[in-house]
Amino acid sequence: MSTGAVSAGAMSTAAVSTADRLVEAAARLLDDGGQAAVTLRAVATATDLSHNAPYKHFDGRDALLAEVATRDLIHLAEQWRGVRAAPVAGRARLLDAVDVIVAFARDHPARYRLVFDSPDPAPRHDDLDAAAETALQAFIDIVVDCQGDGSLPASPSDNLGITLFATVHGLISADASGRLRARSGWGDVRAGMEFLLGLLGDGARS
Amino acid sequence: MSTGAVSAGAMSTAAVSTADRLVEAAARLLDDGGQAAVTLRAVATATDLSHNAPYKHFDGRDALLAEVATRDLIHLAEQWRGVRAAPVAGRARLLDAVDVIVAFARDHPARYRLVFDSPDPAPRHDDLDAAAETALQAFIDIVVDCQGDGSLPASPSDNLGITLFATVHGLISADASGRLRARSGWGDVRAGMEFLLGLLGDGARS
Repeated sequence: MSTGAVSAGAMSTAAVSTADRLVEAAARLLDDGGQAAVTLRAVATATDLSHNAPYKHFDGRDALLAEVATRDLIHLAEQWRGVRAAPVAGRARLLDAVDVIVAFARDHPARYRLVFDSPDPAPRHDDLDAAAETALQAFIDIVVDCQGDGSLPASPSDNLGITLFATVHGLISADASGRLRARSGWGDVRAGMEFLLGLLGDGARS
Repeated sequence: MSTGAVSAGAMSTAAVSTADRLVEAAARLLDDGGQAAVTLRAVATATDLSHNAPYKHFDGRDALLAEVATRDLIHLAEQWRGVRAAPVAGRARLLDAVDVIVAFARDHPARYRLVFDSPDPAPRHDDLDAAAETALQAFIDIVVDCQGDGSLPASPSDNLGITLFATVHGLISADASGRLRARSGWGDVRAGMEFLLGLLGDGARS
């Protein structure tokens, strides 16, 4: 089963390059028209390939979408590792990690939904599951840093990370529906997370 | 502009009844086939009415969907007021309020998304906005109760309520995508919220 460049180490350079082009075209179609715009025919047209060319690289539309989601998760993990390496510590580091996902949701809403939302999640896939675990770990690593410096409580890190990520996702969704800012007075999702981290920090210091 | 029984006080009883049937048919179509299944033609067929009958009661599909969402929000607010009137106090009361929304998301996923999610939110509409505010207030009233008995910190109630609701939404989404339970060890969304409320309660008592 070929699912794209990431998992296709044995492919020739030319073949990998074609798979890359197909994934990039699918990502652009998602950005421009949402999931409905992503058909293998449209992807082939966008890459100036024959209509059946995508099938040489992907089992079908689901496998191609899974590869787009996998690559986005890999990129998010890279960005979170970059946040962790930057000279910003404590709560501000976690808020910078929040900004990474807020920016992804803002700039690539259909791809954000592909990665994180039901009912449009990418089909389950081994590579995708591994990339999701890696990305979650990169986020949780930052939570662990905050626990280490006392800005978050010493509760189980996985559960704290999952809870905080869920809150970010919920605030992004509330903001997208236009209902977040008026009543909260928050200018953005980061402000909402700053509020929650403040409350949790009070608990950490008690 | 007629948008259904709730806002159509001047309609005759027979007309209100037809609008009710149309809204109920739309809700059933959402339950059975998601938003794609809701066309005014399908709604007319499901209610044994002529194809143009829905237009006598709703400006179009968007107005009908908005009415479904409005009624669901009114029902959620009623359920939350019921939770508040029940002889369960403190953190358990808030967790019962969480169960209300988790059950709605589980039993009516397409209607849950219509109410709470982008990219499928119901079109903005005055009745809908009012129902959303009323429902949020019913949830926040329970948060205020928890602040009153010391189980949540005395931070701005609106912001705390919005944050907690966002976390519930994010955990529901994570659970729907199949990624919540394995790593967290939580058996359901309520368990995740119990974890967060525990941390916030530690802060409240500090």
